[in-house]
Amino acid sequence: MRAEIVGVGTEILLGQICNNNAQWISERLAEIGWDVLFHQAVGDNVQRIADAFRLALSRADAVIATGGLGPTQDDITREGLAAALGVGLVRQPAIERFLREKFASMGRSMPGSNLQQADVPEGGRHILPQRGTAPGLICQTPEGTRVYVVPGVPSEMREMVGGTILPELAELGGPSALVSRVLRVTGVAEAKVAEILDDLFRASTNPTVAYLASSGEVKVRLTAKASSGGEADDLIRPVAEEVARRLGAHVFTTNDEELEAVVGRWLKARRLSVATAESLTGGSLGVRLSRAPGSSAYFKGSAVCYTADAKQAVLGVSKETIEGPGVVSEECAREMASGARRIFGADLAVALTGVAGPDEHDGKPVGTICVALRGEGAEESRSFRAPGDREMVRRWAEQAGLDLLRRHLEGSAEPVELGPATENLTA
Amino acid sequence: MRAEIVGVGTEILLGQICNNNAQWISERLAEIGWDVLFHQAVGDNVQRIADAFRLALSRADAVIATGGLGPTQDDITREGLAAALGVGLVRQPAIERFLREKFASMGRSMPGSNLQQADVPEGGRHILPQRGTAPGLICQTPEGTRVYVVPGVPSEMREMVGGTILPELAELGGPSALVSRVLRVTGVAEAKVAEILDDLFRASTNPTVAYLASSGEVKVRLTAKASSGGEADDLIRPVAEEVARRLGAHVFTTNDEELEAVVGRWLKARRLSVATAESLTGGSLGVRLSRAPGSSAYFKGSAVCYTADAKQAVLGVSKETIEGPGVVSEECAREMASGARRIFGADLAVALTGVAGPDEHDGKPVGTICVALRGEGAEESRSFRAPGDREMVRRWAEQAGLDLLRRHLEGSAEPVELGPATENLTA
Repeated sequence: MRAEIVGVGTEILLGQICNNNAQWISERLAEIGWDVLFHQAVGDNVQRIADAFRLALSRADAVIATGGLGPTQDDITREGLAAALGVGLVRQPAIERFLREKFASMGRSMPGSNLQQADVPEGGRHILPQRGTAPGLICQTPEGTRVYVVPGVPSEMREMVGGTILPELAELGGPSALVSRVLRVTGVAEAKVAEILDDLFRASTNPTVAYLASSGEVKVRLTAKASSGGEADDLIRPVAEEVARRLGAHVFTTNDEELEAVVGRWLKARRLSVATAESLTGGSLGVRLSRAPGSSAYFKGSAVCYTADAKQAVLGVSKETIEGPGVVSEECAREMASGARRIFGADLAVALTGVAGPDEHDGKPVGTICVALRGEGAEESRSFRAPGDREMVRRWAEQAGLDLLRRHLEGSAEPVELGPATENLTA
Repeated sequence: MRAEIVGVGTEILLGQICNNNAQWISERLAEIGWDVLFHQAVGDNVQRIADAFRLALSRADAVIATGGLGPTQDDITREGLAAALGVGLVRQPAIERFLREKFASMGRSMPGSNLQQADVPEGGRHILPQRGTAPGLICQTPEGTRVYVVPGVPSEMREMVGGTILPELAELGGPSALVSRVLRVTGVAEAKVAEILDDLFRASTNPTVAYLASSGEVKVRLTAKASSGGEADDLIRPVAEEVARRLGAHVFTTNDEELEAVVGRWLKARRLSVATAESLTGGSLGVRLSRAPGSSAYFKGSAVCYTADAKQAVLGVSKETIEGPGVVSEECAREMASGARRIFGADLAVALTGVAGPDEHDGKPVGTICVALRGEGAEESRSFRAPGDREMVRRWAEQAGLDLLRRHLEGSAEPVELGPATENLTA
């Protein structure tokens, strides 16, 4: 079955935003075995939107359009679609009621312009949103081609594509599946991963492998095609197991989880709580640990101490450490971890200090990262130098903190190469 | 003059890569005053590539295509373009020589398949690359429509678009420029912004306006077209001033800055330091305040206290407050702000507490946000309810904290509607 994706919005054609929605939807459609033959992007112009819909409807079995469903006068995808289908717009009392209730629940009166969001092309259905106020649209041509319109805001788009559209298309598409499985790895470089796995994939076309590296982690994506999801899984499983065996404790998930989610799962299972002490990351390690719903079961808090004074006053780092090895040292990281464990009353604490840049600090070069962990009878610390700009160094530091925590929780005894440089900077 | 961008490559349609090239080229074309009316993306199939070219050539004055110029058998953009133009491919001795020399200079012999890169549609020109081995193509229809093809590798694409294509198109297009200016607004809903500005733009085609809403903020983008950048600026300026006048203190930037950058600028200018106390945000307010290089000049740190115990032990929130109005209250936010100001020795402190969800907390519904600011002789607090999921509520809270800080620093006396609900939840 053939799908086409239409992005609506002048901001795409002006290059002010990238049409990432088309990528995300394409990936999801591939997973359920639908072929995407074309993408289009078109601006906020009723005539051209209608042209884009007509063309897509002439050559696809289903069309998914994003954007132009908001409450302002430049939101005209409804009108464009109605024109392409040769029908009028009909106001839906159910949507109107939904909008009025949504606004009332937020204690606001609804601006009159929001009412246009209650219009649906004649004969069409709608999808009520959980996020936002823009309903999605579902229409069908006399020939049976489906057309879906969802908001351009990524979170609202994903909710409707994932919740409503993919299940409908999967049913229409019949038995065909493209399945991907993602293993994620820390503590080892992309080229090394590729080298370790090279012979496994040199001759393999099903599953295929792709590597994707980012700061402090490598994704290994295995993709198989078969007549069902189960069969595709069967093709992937033995290969995924071999990949996991070869990469050992470097693999933190075989199921595309974020590192903080893996750590959260371990903390819950072992009924342990955690706190952080941070400097160069500005608090982003705590943000990641607290991101998951239910994280209050294990996350106690974090103390972000950007200055030497705050490290002393809040975390109790000693004057000797600050004047001796300095604020960018494993000693300082260890004292920060001890301090965070004490003030938050946590079972475990992780501390990060270092130099995010752009300038060196306390005589240490940009990219220097010191990480420490403190628990009941446990104390570990390491340091390394990360590559890249300020954002990348901060990301490397987060990964190092989370991974130290993960390996401690897993009881993994394997030697760990934390980052690209292995020199011990404070030794 | 009208341009169209065609991305060639099955990897785009599978969602394996995002078509960032289209964004980059669109932005560059806007800068020289060319209108982009459509983007297309098409896979590695000669027939469909030819269809995409025919369509683009039927409605644009210039077409820029990216991708499919490599040496492998799935690189077939040359064939597709030749088919669309109804001409054959002619091998160019100049390109063949270039390729042989390129390989020789790298000490390698050239694989035979690379020779297809020396083929150009009859009557066409080519662009020799500095990076890579793939030459670009320049053709023209009998009607005078230009079509350019460049490699899909971003660095190679940019070299040819910047070095050859934009200068040609700028000359064809004559003196013309498209300029955008973005004002960003907090504390007022998108529909309300549109209503306030409606009459300004109902009749205006130059500049035009677009609204883009996200959690806790609305962007107002003004775009003008003129024969030079200076003239376009002159068209935008009075309208931007009127927009800023009508929206008053809600406007935090007329120059597309992030809210934390505006706050950072104010803190630097007034030589004040800041600390935060956070609960539901997990530290993300501190992350944003510390994101900018040089933020150590004003950011002292943050205390993220997820539990009631930590709020008491670290920030000194009183037992009476925790047992009375509770941890989700303006009283608690005020005591948290006082505590953060004290322990970090900061001039100003902002505190956030609330319910990010998915479940209600301490009897308060999901989305409840309490924000407080404490400074020398200054204490303010507010509460409201934000819409959306956990991520969105956290983002709303950050915006509310940053905006309270901004308005305090600006000395703005205007009444503030922080979020969608104005009820005082703890009154």
